[in-house]
Amino acid sequence: MIKHLCVIGVGLIGGSLALALKEAGFVGRVTGLGRNKPHSLDNLKKAKELGIIDHIETDYVKIIPHADMIFISVPIGAMSAVFEKIEPHLKHNAIVTDGASCKHQVINEAVAKLGVKLKQYVPGHPIAGTEKSGAEAAFASLYKKRRIVLTPLEENTLTDIEKVRTMWQAAGAEVDEMGARHHDLVLAATSHLPHVLAFSLVDTLNKMDDASEVFKYAAGGFRDFTRIASSDPVMWRDICLNNSEAILAMINSYQKEMDVLKKAIAESDAEQLLKMFSDAKCARDKFCM
Amino acid sequence: MIKHLCVIGVGLIGGSLALALKEAGFVGRVTGLGRNKPHSLDNLKKAKELGIIDHIETDYVKIIPHADMIFISVPIGAMSAVFEKIEPHLKHNAIVTDGASCKHQVINEAVAKLGVKLKQYVPGHPIAGTEKSGAEAAFASLYKKRRIVLTPLEENTLTDIEKVRTMWQAAGAEVDEMGARHHDLVLAATSHLPHVLAFSLVDTLNKMDDASEVFKYAAGGFRDFTRIASSDPVMWRDICLNNSEAILAMINSYQKEMDVLKKAIAESDAEQLLKMFSDAKCARDKFCM
Repeated sequence: MIKHLCVIGVGLIGGSLALALKEAGFVGRVTGLGRNKPHSLDNLKKAKELGIIDHIETDYVKIIPHADMIFISVPIGAMSAVFEKIEPHLKHNAIVTDGASCKHQVINEAVAKLGVKLKQYVPGHPIAGTEKSGAEAAFASLYKKRRIVLTPLEENTLTDIEKVRTMWQAAGAEVDEMGARHHDLVLAATSHLPHVLAFSLVDTLNKMDDASEVFKYAAGGFRDFTRIASSDPVMWRDICLNNSEAILAMINSYQKEMDVLKKAIAESDAEQLLKMFSDAKCARDKFCM
Repeated sequence: MIKHLCVIGVGLIGGSLALALKEAGFVGRVTGLGRNKPHSLDNLKKAKELGIIDHIETDYVKIIPHADMIFISVPIGAMSAVFEKIEPHLKHNAIVTDGASCKHQVINEAVAKLGVKLKQYVPGHPIAGTEKSGAEAAFASLYKKRRIVLTPLEENTLTDIEKVRTMWQAAGAEVDEMGARHHDLVLAATSHLPHVLAFSLVDTLNKMDDASEVFKYAAGGFRDFTRIASSDPVMWRDICLNNSEAILAMINSYQKEMDVLKKAIAESDAEQLLKMFSDAKCARDKFCM
């Protein structure tokens, strides 16, 4: 049970966690902390209207000293500034955790900004989401049966790790642990690569002379395939900037696979094409059903 | 109203057309024509059990002379043989149409095999489908509000084109006409490229050392993105073999886009990344909502 949860960045990820914990009766009070800017305030007001948060706050000094659990779900590019702003005000037994899709780089920023309070930061990443963003996109069941990866630090206490694990379990999720670098490689493959491929596909078609006509004939498969290209561009810019090494390695592997396919098509190599497509279907059916 | 419809290849595409026309009361009798092979016969029996077809036939001589409308929905690699087998038995006022995703190459095969009866073939392609195949995957509403592209021949009569158009409209679809080569370019962009990208993505991940673990962390976005990689490998082999020029051109455009993206990631070019992702999101939201 969390007495006072502070969510910094009440969008799809942070908002859904708050809703899930409220539904589970696992949280007392939820404060949404955001910037004193029109866009941010509008989102916080909407979050309060929707019952996602109980209070709106824009001043770190007023809220951080009272929070037991602080969940950061801002774009990765804003994480460093948030660590810097919370550090002076964290109470000694508060826990900080987050939802960032890249762990290695974010941990480096926490090391730089949290100093001796680094031990209070338990890095995490919920493997869940939709292409929507903002408080209005949040829903209580987002994490039901989804995987949460924690990438704990040597500095963390087992008690704090356990508290973060219990929070996610209360939200309906299954919790795993792995090293930050390994997490970043796995996510580059399963999430970051597919997203950049989808963005690139839509951009490729959009640059065609007859783009409007082309999109008119896009059927269900295309819509499914490109749904993730509707994701938040700022979030994905930050992911590419913060997990660049692993993403570039995956793009290189992918381009090699594309070259093999191109060769097979150019040479009308029916056997090779059938093998590639059958292997893919078999793997997809095995792992994703 | 079609008195006697003969469906050659009663899978998702042909089966769904039969079901839709039955539901609309637009067809009298439906015969499913297939090969006298265990796999084909099992599928035809299943189609009859499900009420998709009224009769099973494996002998072209017995059924083609009596059919008013013949719908061919076999893999593209089998089209030429089907044209050859129906040609001697076609009655003079029968219409032949099909569901093949590549039109130019298939039309060439029809020219070679149908001779003077070419005028009875009105080429078509329903822009609809799922990743499933076989009679069991068929459903009556597959074509509701979906686009059907006809790529009529100079040899066709306006009356025959109109009859095929009316059939598809009875199944709930919207019917457009365009040239075969143009159709193949548009489909290479919106359907063939996304499919080969999805197959390649799954193959890339499947070749990783820790493939099982990687797929374990694949979330909703990945499932959506790779759903089309569960499509029939034989069908996609045939599409790649029969629309190779347009598909290779699209893969080349795509690879250029990927190179721009790689450069932006490698150089941490935040502005360029944001532009690419924003353009994609904007185009996707505009065309696919």
